[in-house]
Amino acid sequence: MGLIVQKFGGSSVANADKIRNVAKIITKTYDDGNDVIVVLSAQGDTTDDLIAKAGELNSKPSKREMDMLLATGEQQSIALCAMAIEAMGYPVISLTGWQVGMKTNSSYGGARIKRVDCERIRAELDKRCIVIVAGFQGVNKRDDVTTLGRGGSDTSAVALAASLGADLCQIYTDVDGVYTADPRKIKGARKLEEISFDEMLELACLGSQVLHNRSVEMAKRYHVNMEVLSSFSGLPGTKVKEVVKPVENSHIVGVAKDTDIARIALVGLSDRPGIAFRVFSLLAKRKINVDIILQSIGREESKDISFTVSKADVDAARDILEEYKEAIGFHSVHVSEDVAKISIVGSGMINNPGVAADMFGALYNANININMISTSEIKVSVLVDIRDADHAVQVIHDKFFAEFG
Amino acid sequence: MGLIVQKFGGSSVANADKIRNVAKIITKTYDDGNDVIVVLSAQGDTTDDLIAKAGELNSKPSKREMDMLLATGEQQSIALCAMAIEAMGYPVISLTGWQVGMKTNSSYGGARIKRVDCERIRAELDKRCIVIVAGFQGVNKRDDVTTLGRGGSDTSAVALAASLGADLCQIYTDVDGVYTADPRKIKGARKLEEISFDEMLELACLGSQVLHNRSVEMAKRYHVNMEVLSSFSGLPGTKVKEVVKPVENSHIVGVAKDTDIARIALVGLSDRPGIAFRVFSLLAKRKINVDIILQSIGREESKDISFTVSKADVDAARDILEEYKEAIGFHSVHVSEDVAKISIVGSGMINNPGVAADMFGALYNANININMISTSEIKVSVLVDIRDADHAVQVIHDKFFAEFG
Repeated sequence: MGLIVQKFGGSSVANADKIRNVAKIITKTYDDGNDVIVVLSAQGDTTDDLIAKAGELNSKPSKREMDMLLATGEQQSIALCAMAIEAMGYPVISLTGWQVGMKTNSSYGGARIKRVDCERIRAELDKRCIVIVAGFQGVNKRDDVTTLGRGGSDTSAVALAASLGADLCQIYTDVDGVYTADPRKIKGARKLEEISFDEMLELACLGSQVLHNRSVEMAKRYHVNMEVLSSFSGLPGTKVKEVVKPVENSHIVGVAKDTDIARIALVGLSDRPGIAFRVFSLLAKRKINVDIILQSIGREESKDISFTVSKADVDAARDILEEYKEAIGFHSVHVSEDVAKISIVGSGMINNPGVAADMFGALYNANININMISTSEIKVSVLVDIRDADHAVQVIHDKFFAEFG
Repeated sequence: MGLIVQKFGGSSVANADKIRNVAKIITKTYDDGNDVIVVLSAQGDTTDDLIAKAGELNSKPSKREMDMLLATGEQQSIALCAMAIEAMGYPVISLTGWQVGMKTNSSYGGARIKRVDCERIRAELDKRCIVIVAGFQGVNKRDDVTTLGRGGSDTSAVALAASLGADLCQIYTDVDGVYTADPRKIKGARKLEEISFDEMLELACLGSQVLHNRSVEMAKRYHVNMEVLSSFSGLPGTKVKEVVKPVENSHIVGVAKDTDIARIALVGLSDRPGIAFRVFSLLAKRKINVDIILQSIGREESKDISFTVSKADVDAARDILEEYKEAIGFHSVHVSEDVAKISIVGSGMINNPGVAADMFGALYNANININMISTSEIKVSVLVDIRDADHAVQVIHDKFFAEFG
């Protein structure tokens, strides 16, 4: 018994049957004595269809009008879902972003939530109404419609849970939780019962598509308990919260692979102070995020710097470096896109210095070469050849989760 | 130069090409130095598609949720049209019903406009922005979305024109004006340059589908000059206004046919006082509108009463009359659905008593039998056999508009 926010993504409400399925989950939660707030995305391909319609009229429409257009998708979902719940005989009301007072800044297409005025929702909950809210959308101070960008509906759900002090924010999706590795590829991968916010954030950064970082960051900041679960399986999912009990016999929660990455090497840098500062401040000015950095001292007063960026930033990075080649002073730029980043994540590794060594040992035994290494308090990442990537994940996963295989 | 409200119906914005056509009309009006407010309906079949989607989930959805769903159709139209106008390089902004402060009562599905808060529109017009407003929708005092029912977008347009003191409210549709008779059926039918509000109201009541009565009534009350014209032909349309110059050589503006009508006859009523009162108050209580009434004195202290109702009300009318047969005291009920009402409309006929006689003469010469007659200050209606209907319209039209045939 409590206040539960449930978020369902576009695939969970893609057609009438799926909406009825979602309505069953919602009314079951309500029947268990909970107050229920539901956040919905647009149905299936609705958003893509609307973007295509816009493209017929304007190759570069203003973001304000695009948000006005796209916000209709979620409004349709909530009305249809409310109708399905009405048909089951429950009290229900749908509310748009502006009706629930989801106030954002004016960054159309990627707006940030500033606050949520909760009076309307509270009034409906007091009447024991199930409240269905349009995700992904808000309204700025001029009362213009905004959308929240990628992962927007998850963020809407967490913002509502935070503002209303919900006991739990359930994110229903098409996977049934967070796994120790991609279960479609890695033998022995298993679902986690729990994961901490920090671990989830690292996993999300490392290419796990389960939750968007913005929502996890917000949940962490406002102490919102989350759960990731499937709207189809009916099984318990993975809880995301502040402190979790350790996974049995393991100091890590997962092994992740990121192939959207490229390595850039600056070769033959003159060995002067301030070179690294010059290189990385140049990239920062162009808003290019750099991940792993490796600096090697070469022979005869020259050195090399290697670093990784996302594949989308490769060309921009190369261009700016070539442009400033003389000012920086280097011999050549080498780019390799055939690399993958393999990472282990776990709060437990802070107190267990052997974890990184175990990871390197597993790769050594499998004859996989490590290009670069990066560590944080709860993560160890290595760069390997992309052809070795899946094998690398498997042997590392075997090493840490062998007993569950 | 002035403030012009332009309303485009669903067929005028049904696809990208049609939206571009509408955008041309709008920007042309803007280029002529006018402030322009545009009111749009939902695209083509959007509303029907949404109703079908709702039907999959709930055979009788609440009107509140239906309005929430349907209002998305107009919101999509306005965003898309704004994008088309942006692409032409004009300043433009789309606004929903709630954003323009279209305040209504809470009769979901058929809400009445209570007032329009015009600040936002005025602010945008002051910036020389073209303002695109979602028709058909408003918001009640709880900030819930409402829709205005049939003819709603026309009514939105007139309400905005009235509130902002517009110089003209243009209703663009798929016909290019108001005709003296249905131009697809009647030889010699011609477009009127002007028509008065009262004449337009009579014609609308008589089955002319050009404008919905609610919008004409509102335009009359608030002295809004209207014009009906085609978004495709580019030709001048028909002006609807308070006082019009007479159509040359004719005292009438049009001949209309209404086949959505049935005649009910109560035969063998005892000739007591208060019989008519009893019959028609019974029907009024069931909200059955009665149109033409004919009372005939029969032989031997009995009489008959005939009257017309719309076809949709026939069963309800017969049921209530049969239920009260003894209380009223009559012999039998006869119903005929094979009838049509043919009417002539025109302010000029008040001062020209020969007009009705001319109409009857035309029918007599064509050997068409008149069942019932009803007259008002600006209208004469006759009931004829449905098989004679089109011929009746033609001969009456020939009589009054022969010189233009």
